[in-house]
Amino acid sequence: MSLLPTDDALARFALAPGFQSASLACGLKKSGAPDLLMVWSDVPCSAAGVFTTNRVQAAPVVVDREVLAARPGAVRGVLANAGCANAVTGERGLADARRMQALGAAAIGAEAGQVLVLSTGVIGVFLDMEKLARGVGALLGPDVDRSAGAAARAITTTDTRAKIAAVTMTLGAGTARVAGFAKGAGMIHPNMATMLAVITTDVRIEPVRLDRALRAAVERSFNRISVDGDMSTNDTVLVLASGAAGIVVHDEDEAAFTAALASVCVSLAKQIARDGEGATRLVELRVTGAADEAQAHRVGDAIACSPLVKTAIHGNDPNWGRILAAAGYSGAPVVPERTQLWFGERDDVQLLDAGLPLPFDAARASELLKCDPAVIRLDLGLGGAVATLWTCDFSAEYVRVNADYTT
Amino acid sequence: MSLLPTDDALARFALAPGFQSASLACGLKKSGAPDLLMVWSDVPCSAAGVFTTNRVQAAPVVVDREVLAARPGAVRGVLANAGCANAVTGERGLADARRMQALGAAAIGAEAGQVLVLSTGVIGVFLDMEKLARGVGALLGPDVDRSAGAAARAITTTDTRAKIAAVTMTLGAGTARVAGFAKGAGMIHPNMATMLAVITTDVRIEPVRLDRALRAAVERSFNRISVDGDMSTNDTVLVLASGAAGIVVHDEDEAAFTAALASVCVSLAKQIARDGEGATRLVELRVTGAADEAQAHRVGDAIACSPLVKTAIHGNDPNWGRILAAAGYSGAPVVPERTQLWFGERDDVQLLDAGLPLPFDAARASELLKCDPAVIRLDLGLGGAVATLWTCDFSAEYVRVNADYTT
Repeated sequence: MSLLPTDDALARFALAPGFQSASLACGLKKSGAPDLLMVWSDVPCSAAGVFTTNRVQAAPVVVDREVLAARPGAVRGVLANAGCANAVTGERGLADARRMQALGAAAIGAEAGQVLVLSTGVIGVFLDMEKLARGVGALLGPDVDRSAGAAARAITTTDTRAKIAAVTMTLGAGTARVAGFAKGAGMIHPNMATMLAVITTDVRIEPVRLDRALRAAVERSFNRISVDGDMSTNDTVLVLASGAAGIVVHDEDEAAFTAALASVCVSLAKQIARDGEGATRLVELRVTGAADEAQAHRVGDAIACSPLVKTAIHGNDPNWGRILAAAGYSGAPVVPERTQLWFGERDDVQLLDAGLPLPFDAARASELLKCDPAVIRLDLGLGGAVATLWTCDFSAEYVRVNADYTT
Repeated sequence: MSLLPTDDALARFALAPGFQSASLACGLKKSGAPDLLMVWSDVPCSAAGVFTTNRVQAAPVVVDREVLAARPGAVRGVLANAGCANAVTGERGLADARRMQALGAAAIGAEAGQVLVLSTGVIGVFLDMEKLARGVGALLGPDVDRSAGAAARAITTTDTRAKIAAVTMTLGAGTARVAGFAKGAGMIHPNMATMLAVITTDVRIEPVRLDRALRAAVERSFNRISVDGDMSTNDTVLVLASGAAGIVVHDEDEAAFTAALASVCVSLAKQIARDGEGATRLVELRVTGAADEAQAHRVGDAIACSPLVKTAIHGNDPNWGRILAAAGYSGAPVVPERTQLWFGERDDVQLLDAGLPLPFDAARASELLKCDPAVIRLDLGLGGAVATLWTCDFSAEYVRVNADYTT
């Protein structure tokens, strides 16, 4: 479990300078655990977001798209709840999301159009606006946990642990921070909306540049994980830049900033994959030798989504035929005679060469699948492009959790 | 389990007139169960086949494509083995498949190019040609089971039951038969190649017409089932027409013949879905109100492949949010505000109207999910096209079987 944060790491976790947070329990989670949080800045921030491509979009997704289209340079904060997704709730749900936005804005002295909202939880249920309003009213009061680690915990649903990541980056004018948290145990839990992330940085950056950096970072991180192939109605990644470091990201710094943002996103994405419901290990799929990156991604995605591959890994079963079969139906022009396959961090055991099975040490191959992460490399022999994807093994516990949710 | 054949039904099962069968155990299955069978005719048959679209194609698929391209009007029989898929076996595997073809041809006094071959079992392992040759040599000997039910059993791998179906059809010139068997418990078992079907009929029909009928039948049957979304390297459906009924299928009979063939294919497909590894019930998904059939199929496919939907059904959990979320990411232009959703054979309980959750009797909805088949209807409100798909529930037993296969 080394990939997931310890209690100590959570206690030490801090957002980027310029941001505050508060969290509490307002009664949306049946368990009574904290389920409401806000992250905000006293000054307007540049902000960017990436959202689910599901045709069924939750109300907060609709509201956030509007905010980022209208005022991406003047965002003040993010108000989030867990326990109810406010998805498939029609006009009433949209009105609720706007009211939530207004409540958050009032709490920090901002305008409604300056606040982003996130919801995660059961689909098809209306937000309890009374509980929410009472909660937001108390959020800046005296008895509230102001630690960033508590905020990271409050956004979780079926997660076994909160997910946090932070880096310091060196730009031309000095150093600055990127720090964020995420929730999501895959799209594992029945009607729990999957994947939310809130990332903060203290650089000053124009919204267009921040948006470009976020899209590049998400493409190599959150878009490269799969737990069960189910895409939620609420998936959202938000980034806010306070400018508190007094450092402006110019053209020459954009690559370094994007790399720092991507490293935080990759860390959060891997934590989500590792914490997939019932998962016992992270799986890292390295697809190499592809004609282009999109092809590598496509092949990796088919493998990462295959229940057969994921159950085999759970059973430490070196059934490499399933990996090749998944590559074959991925839609990419895979040529079996050019494929090679290895298990292990350092290509420790080769199973397939030029499309032909090699004799291999089954016990050793099985041991490599027990590693956390279990590393698999498939070379397509079609070019020089690569993609790395992450998933988890697939255990009977997954079925148990998902079959027994509401009944 | 009423959908799957009883021992009595298997004992009574007969191929169409003009066809014989034989089966025995040649030692390819570790269990020692029958694993070799042949279906043949004494006269040349029209034949057609539909094959996996996986880029990784097993050797027998390559050989059968050649046969049907070269001599689709002169096929004499099908030789099939279970226990080894002869897939990802390169040139040697192809040579083995050709040798298997020649052995089958010699046994029934045909030319090699008149025999189709099928293999199912472990991927990446070479056929034991010695066992196979010995088995084929004994296939027409005295101590061999000549019943069609035994042939249907010999082709199975992880199936709990053999799958059989037969109908009598009325054409302009009289009645004739379509009768066939299939194997496949989804693409459930690790490296067992999934889905094979051999269908016989006693009509006389030109190969082009037979091919057209088979493609239409497969589109509405085998292409509409999903157990886990994994597509095998060996999937093959073959149909052979002996002409023994002395009835020619003319233009005016083609629709009736296609309907009969489709009804056999649909029955076999539903038996395969019902017998998915660990499945406790069949699930019938009715997608209605689509703009066209392809759209209905696409939406149904996303739902049928969703582990979240399938685990919810297993747990009798009326979590309809998962169904709508899957429709939303299917790629079809779903408009949530137009959707309606029902459970039950006769739309017994409505859960969603115009994209809004309805209050519903959860206990009654849960009872409906326990039915075999459990019936779910999603109306998209976009047009008049429909598609029906079949899948099964997803139990912890699936994971157990697939994780513990070779280790």
